[in-house]
Amino acid sequence: MGQKKSSEQACWIWYPGDWEIWLHEQISVRRESRGAVYPAYWRLDRAYSSVLFSHEYELEEPEEVTITADGRFALYLDGKDNVRFHQERLTLPAGKHELRVSVHNGVGVPALRVEGPTIRTNSSWQVTCYDRRWHPAGSWPEALSDAAVSPSEYRLATRPMDPVSLERTQDGWFADFGKETFGYLRMAGASADSEWTIYYGESREEAEDREQCVLLDQVKVPMEGEGVLTLPQARAFRYVQLVPTDPGATLAGVSMLYEYLPVEYRGRFRSSSERLNEIWDTSVYTFHLNTREFFFDGIKRDRWVWSGDAYQSFLMNYYSFFDQEVAKRTLVALRGKDPVVMHMNTILDYSLYWFTGIYDYYQYTGDLEFVRSQYDRMVTLMDFCLGRRNENGMMEGIGEDWVFVDWADLDNKGEVSTIQLLLSRSLETMALVAELVGDGDRGPVYRELSEALLAKTMNIFWDEKQGGLVHNRKDGVVGKKVTKYPNMFALMFGYLDEKRTESVKRNVLLNPEVQGIKTPYMRFYELAALCEIGEHEFVLKEMLDYWGGMLDLGATSFWEEYDPNQKGREHLAMYGMPYGRSLCHAWGASPIFLLGRYFLGVRPTSPGYGTFVVEPRRGGLEWIEGAVPIGPGEVELRSDGEKIRVRATHGRGVLRYRCGEEMREASIPEDGSWLEVRY
Amino acid sequence: MGQKKSSEQACWIWYPGDWEIWLHEQISVRRESRGAVYPAYWRLDRAYSSVLFSHEYELEEPEEVTITADGRFALYLDGKDNVRFHQERLTLPAGKHELRVSVHNGVGVPALRVEGPTIRTNSSWQVTCYDRRWHPAGSWPEALSDAAVSPSEYRLATRPMDPVSLERTQDGWFADFGKETFGYLRMAGASADSEWTIYYGESREEAEDREQCVLLDQVKVPMEGEGVLTLPQARAFRYVQLVPTDPGATLAGVSMLYEYLPVEYRGRFRSSSERLNEIWDTSVYTFHLNTREFFFDGIKRDRWVWSGDAYQSFLMNYYSFFDQEVAKRTLVALRGKDPVVMHMNTILDYSLYWFTGIYDYYQYTGDLEFVRSQYDRMVTLMDFCLGRRNENGMMEGIGEDWVFVDWADLDNKGEVSTIQLLLSRSLETMALVAELVGDGDRGPVYRELSEALLAKTMNIFWDEKQGGLVHNRKDGVVGKKVTKYPNMFALMFGYLDEKRTESVKRNVLLNPEVQGIKTPYMRFYELAALCEIGEHEFVLKEMLDYWGGMLDLGATSFWEEYDPNQKGREHLAMYGMPYGRSLCHAWGASPIFLLGRYFLGVRPTSPGYGTFVVEPRRGGLEWIEGAVPIGPGEVELRSDGEKIRVRATHGRGVLRYRCGEEMREASIPEDGSWLEVRY
Repeated sequence: MGQKKSSEQACWIWYPGDWEIWLHEQISVRRESRGAVYPAYWRLDRAYSSVLFSHEYELEEPEEVTITADGRFALYLDGKDNVRFHQERLTLPAGKHELRVSVHNGVGVPALRVEGPTIRTNSSWQVTCYDRRWHPAGSWPEALSDAAVSPSEYRLATRPMDPVSLERTQDGWFADFGKETFGYLRMAGASADSEWTIYYGESREEAEDREQCVLLDQVKVPMEGEGVLTLPQARAFRYVQLVPTDPGATLAGVSMLYEYLPVEYRGRFRSSSERLNEIWDTSVYTFHLNTREFFFDGIKRDRWVWSGDAYQSFLMNYYSFFDQEVAKRTLVALRGKDPVVMHMNTILDYSLYWFTGIYDYYQYTGDLEFVRSQYDRMVTLMDFCLGRRNENGMMEGIGEDWVFVDWADLDNKGEVSTIQLLLSRSLETMALVAELVGDGDRGPVYRELSEALLAKTMNIFWDEKQGGLVHNRKDGVVGKKVTKYPNMFALMFGYLDEKRTESVKRNVLLNPEVQGIKTPYMRFYELAALCEIGEHEFVLKEMLDYWGGMLDLGATSFWEEYDPNQKGREHLAMYGMPYGRSLCHAWGASPIFLLGRYFLGVRPTSPGYGTFVVEPRRGGLEWIEGAVPIGPGEVELRSDGEKIRVRATHGRGVLRYRCGEEMREASIPEDGSWLEVRY
Repeated sequence: MGQKKSSEQACWIWYPGDWEIWLHEQISVRRESRGAVYPAYWRLDRAYSSVLFSHEYELEEPEEVTITADGRFALYLDGKDNVRFHQERLTLPAGKHELRVSVHNGVGVPALRVEGPTIRTNSSWQVTCYDRRWHPAGSWPEALSDAAVSPSEYRLATRPMDPVSLERTQDGWFADFGKETFGYLRMAGASADSEWTIYYGESREEAEDREQCVLLDQVKVPMEGEGVLTLPQARAFRYVQLVPTDPGATLAGVSMLYEYLPVEYRGRFRSSSERLNEIWDTSVYTFHLNTREFFFDGIKRDRWVWSGDAYQSFLMNYYSFFDQEVAKRTLVALRGKDPVVMHMNTILDYSLYWFTGIYDYYQYTGDLEFVRSQYDRMVTLMDFCLGRRNENGMMEGIGEDWVFVDWADLDNKGEVSTIQLLLSRSLETMALVAELVGDGDRGPVYRELSEALLAKTMNIFWDEKQGGLVHNRKDGVVGKKVTKYPNMFALMFGYLDEKRTESVKRNVLLNPEVQGIKTPYMRFYELAALCEIGEHEFVLKEMLDYWGGMLDLGATSFWEEYDPNQKGREHLAMYGMPYGRSLCHAWGASPIFLLGRYFLGVRPTSPGYGTFVVEPRRGGLEWIEGAVPIGPGEVELRSDGEKIRVRATHGRGVLRYRCGEEMREASIPEDGSWLEVRY
């Protein structure tokens, strides 16, 4: 606490995490199925409606402050809570005082903004939900400082966009916006008092199918008519069909307000392959469309925050926007509040991905303050997980727990090896963070649990004959089926020695007999694991085939699922619905991560890129070039057949490269100047 | 689940406890201090905003139902959640189906009402907050069935009332409503566009004191002016001063809308003492004013729900209105939601009174269904309490815990004997309810803990020399000070043998050397304890003096604190404020309980008055008569110097009475006819 420098801007403050949890509640009930609400099917936690802020100050002269609250507020000094003020302008007395402001808001987030010459709200203020625990206040000074716009009024940015075509049909209009997009449809010059049904489609087929398209709107043009009518709900679409109830109704034009999170495109990638460049661009566009209030799974259907999906988005984000705010918001929203009585998103694996997301967040950002703020909730979620281990100390689905792993033909009953590996990694995360926050009691316990579980898992599930990890153990019987999942996680997490790594590569990952992966979701880890073992050429070919295959089918964003063996409308169906598949799904954008981490080859070796490695691999391409954000700075590089040029504007980096048979290392200058090495 | 009889009315349903918790949130932020909001200073929990209802039905013919939701809803059948309906009228198909309705409401309580010829919402429907746990839906069919009034629109009843006088003062008007009251002030014929300040007072002094009165309103009369303006906030007052900003503004009249919970005055009491009858009447009026959405502490200032205060209100309620709904609402609201991280109302004793409140609720009502619905939250609150015991297995204040006991000069540091007695009783309650709900694991543990703690407490705190329990033990040293508190609780809870009872009576309760009690709050237990040991004459005298003393000072309702030694305005002050004292405080109404339980002498001997005892004691009065509600029925009786007449319309009752030196018993007829015995 204490007085802040007067140069610092006043910003809105709130109970930490509560604006995020409130925003998450809002977006989780925006899903619609043909006009009917379809809220997320897990418990939605809520912001506290009544909170108390506290700030100690010392003034030589009295100071006039302006108080703006989202909600009803009362201010009092030095614990004299019977003497309360509720004027918006107030002169605070000189001397040393403790200022307290109570704010109640039963609809939005109770938030406070105080501005004076020196006294100004910021994260140094403390806040409680009246449970006798004080926390540093939550804030987002870059976006939520304007007194005129409260945190509850936060909206993404918008800009107008026109369709590439608008056709008159037999009984209406049909617009094509040229590519997948998201926002508020606008109707210009519609007849006064006319009524319309709007059918949206990510595909032409969907927008044309009035009976089955997933998204639709019923619109009534006001009596005043004419003008431009902006629809109240933002939708995902490329195509729109507009049909008036009265055949005589007219329409002058259609456009939209594209809605987006302002982010900086900090990651860049170009190569000698135009196809690969297009995959990069489409990936980034797909990812941006899904990077919104939070990392969403897909923009058409759920628009929910799913932990397993978000875990991949975190990783893509580090190689594209490096937007820490959306990552933090997503972690906070996913976790919600105590008590934990079920798994995140109802899925066992998804509780565990949340921990690994924290692990990576710390590695990439070094943001100890945020990690520390999450520690209490990490402990209670881990308590929940540990409390659900079976008599062998392993987690398996209990009751209605959903053990997902992947959309695939899998038997996830009993002890699934992938789950135990994720739990090991989660316990490793707990140990790491316990050490960071100085919890000397729990740290060693987590460390020991993690190591013991990992040893047991490798011992039980490793099948020497088949040369890899088997999928599960059921009723005490270890299964025969080797799947890629546990093997690729073990590899990525560094849980395999050299010999087993080689075995997994040959017998599992590159073995066509082993069940293939059909979702971009798990292809993410599969291809990452192959890169970990140096199979860049193979991975490049897979990328060009798999993501290139979607481009060949006209994709302008990448999909939730893609099976090259399917045909025509089969590509649109999922969940028993003809247009159930999302054609713009975050997990479809994984080339961002693969190209950034494994081709440009940039990764932190200490938290927040204090130190890092750049190990570019062209995978057979003539040349690659690009940039990777590394916290406040970036790495820029180009690699071709003759040389590598690299520079960095943050941290201490090492360039690793192969020269003939030899691996060499060179320090990257810390002054931002270029390093060039020739083979 | 299953189909209900068509004769049953459809009612609103919600997530169990959530309407109560939502209502509690609303009322907890209505306190104001001279116009500034003053929310309750403990964590306010919130209703879930997104819930899912479920109902299985079997129909021979399709059936049309009308669906009304408070919030946005979507209905689907048999788990097909992609096919959702949101029409208000819908024909449900014949056959056996599972109907699910999701409702979201971010402001009020998500609630549902479905009405068809046979399918109708009621408590047989199930509901979840999407945490995979299903519960019977909450409802209140008697009050919340009308489709046009959702649970969030629930309001208490009102009726117009006029002042007994309205005077013109130098610069305004002054009204006296003749007695303490509560409601919305009305101004008739105020000048258009005039501005007024309204000063309220429970006393004339307070309403006259513009600088210091606790409640005030700023009112602007609309431009249309005239007519009757009803102020938006309900206030507690007897006197009102109205002062216009413009001295020329006029006012034709003042009245109010009295706001109250409709209850039945089931308990009745009359005696040969007119003073005592007035005490009874004033007690019931005081109690009714504080019996509202919940049992409040007092109507002027807090209007909050305090567990220790409510515990006494529960007991008074059983001898007056026997309104189970307000008792249940209060218990649910006090408990709130998990996780428990601090004591109820911040006060250690208040967590414990909640358990004893459940104990009594079950004894008086026999309502196992409600007790069962609270069991999970009883367990987590008790876990919290047990987790805060010290190394001796006793509870004491930790950190900022408030150990209250009473407004008095007390040292509540260390192990306070009263607290251990309350914890013993709470553990007894846990054991009882664990047995009722069939929790065979926890039941014996609670029983054992309760007995062990009680034995230890009596062992440590009983001071043989002083003949009573001492107040506390600090730093391992047992105190010397005997206070009435532990002794009266031990007596009331039946924790003293005959010898110790006699000792406590002589050495503590009737010993003028022992520190006296100044609040009606603790006088409640003191006088109850004295009645337990047959000191009715003494108690009667105390009642006539103490409560009679307030009547002598002009009280029209009973106070938060009354010290006969104070003078004039001293009676109005508290908390360092000249009008801080509440002159209408629930705990001031304890003669209801004392007269009902110990003079009319009616008490249950098995849950819900299946069996009961009537043991009238006149305490020296010539005659007493009255009625006590006993669940669905009542006991009516009259006792004078010659005979006792008693009848009962429920349960199996026994009349106990003294005939000379002998105690006699007689069965009360079960057919409702009179029993008469003569001495």
